[in-house]
Amino acid sequence: MRLVCLDLEGVLVPEIWISVAEVTGIPELRLTTRDIPDYDELMNHRLGILDREGIRLPDIQAVIETLDPLPGAAPFFEALRARTQAVILSDTFVQFAGPLMKKLRFPTLFCNELLVDSEGKITGYRLRQADGKRHAVTAFRSLNLQVIAVGDSYNDLSMIRAANAGALFHPPDTIVAEHPDLPVFRDYDALLSFLTSAPIHAEPHA
Amino acid sequence: MRLVCLDLEGVLVPEIWISVAEVTGIPELRLTTRDIPDYDELMNHRLGILDREGIRLPDIQAVIETLDPLPGAAPFFEALRARTQAVILSDTFVQFAGPLMKKLRFPTLFCNELLVDSEGKITGYRLRQADGKRHAVTAFRSLNLQVIAVGDSYNDLSMIRAANAGALFHPPDTIVAEHPDLPVFRDYDALLSFLTSAPIHAEPHA
Repeated sequence: MRLVCLDLEGVLVPEIWISVAEVTGIPELRLTTRDIPDYDELMNHRLGILDREGIRLPDIQAVIETLDPLPGAAPFFEALRARTQAVILSDTFVQFAGPLMKKLRFPTLFCNELLVDSEGKITGYRLRQADGKRHAVTAFRSLNLQVIAVGDSYNDLSMIRAANAGALFHPPDTIVAEHPDLPVFRDYDALLSFLTSAPIHAEPHA
Repeated sequence: MRLVCLDLEGVLVPEIWISVAEVTGIPELRLTTRDIPDYDELMNHRLGILDREGIRLPDIQAVIETLDPLPGAAPFFEALRARTQAVILSDTFVQFAGPLMKKLRFPTLFCNELLVDSEGKITGYRLRQADGKRHAVTAFRSLNLQVIAVGDSYNDLSMIRAANAGALFHPPDTIVAEHPDLPVFRDYDALLSFLTSAPIHAEPHA
């Protein structure tokens, strides 16, 4: 049985923090792990900005409510789920993902959680586990599932390498250059064809 | 992050083999693991009947197309997925489940596969792995997911016991008597409330 593991932001939906930066007019919220490589440092930086600006979880959720899946993502994902099993492995937070999951018809999502006080202030976050995407792929393989992983970014590489097969979707040029063996897709039709018909290796390809 | 693992037949949809027995008028196909405890023996018995009667996979799929989720199951499952993560762990076959998965809006399903020849004859089956439901729960727990498992039958007990919490839905009286510590539900509203608000034990309760 085949299981496709998909990254969320950049693959099915827009980058959430960038959208929040644009709507709130706070460009510092655009910073990503490309700017601050340490994730904990980056998140504490973001939470500090939210605190300073008085932005609470409901404010961010109101922004996210206005977002839609990327053009073509919803029909792609519907067609994929009609043909094989699929789950979303994301580093986002369950409190952010909700409105977008509804628009994607409630797929299974494994991600992280925000810590929020009774007044809606985001006080911290809880990672499900370190390197959670890779651990999930490894666990799925232990269930004799044939796993194909797809992502767009550096934090997807370990799950792609742990899978039976993998691909990049709309990746930055740097990742393409550094990983010339990985198939690269830039449209959903070709990605769907790959995910439902790619031959599966018995062993991880790294 | 909480993950609900649900059995399929008897919990969300009717028993598929019993429906096939009724529509085809072949009562021998009603036999279950309660009648023939050895699963491989039971399946070979079923496949022998199908061969004898000339019933191919498309014939069975035509029966399954006429089935609907159990009354109330679809809205229950939709409400559950809006509030927490959920996957279906089933001993059915992917070729049987398809039409019902569409009616349940394509949840994630881990199950087994039939081996089918080019003319649609079912020649055998492939288990994903032995005791696959329990292994799946154990793998999910290794991902720091808090797992609640629900089923109706003997083949669900190992996953229920391996989970952080578990319950029975419409079980036979024998299982209730043998497992008096497990919560029993007979309507979806109470089950939904339990699944989304039950306290989670840090360790398996068996």
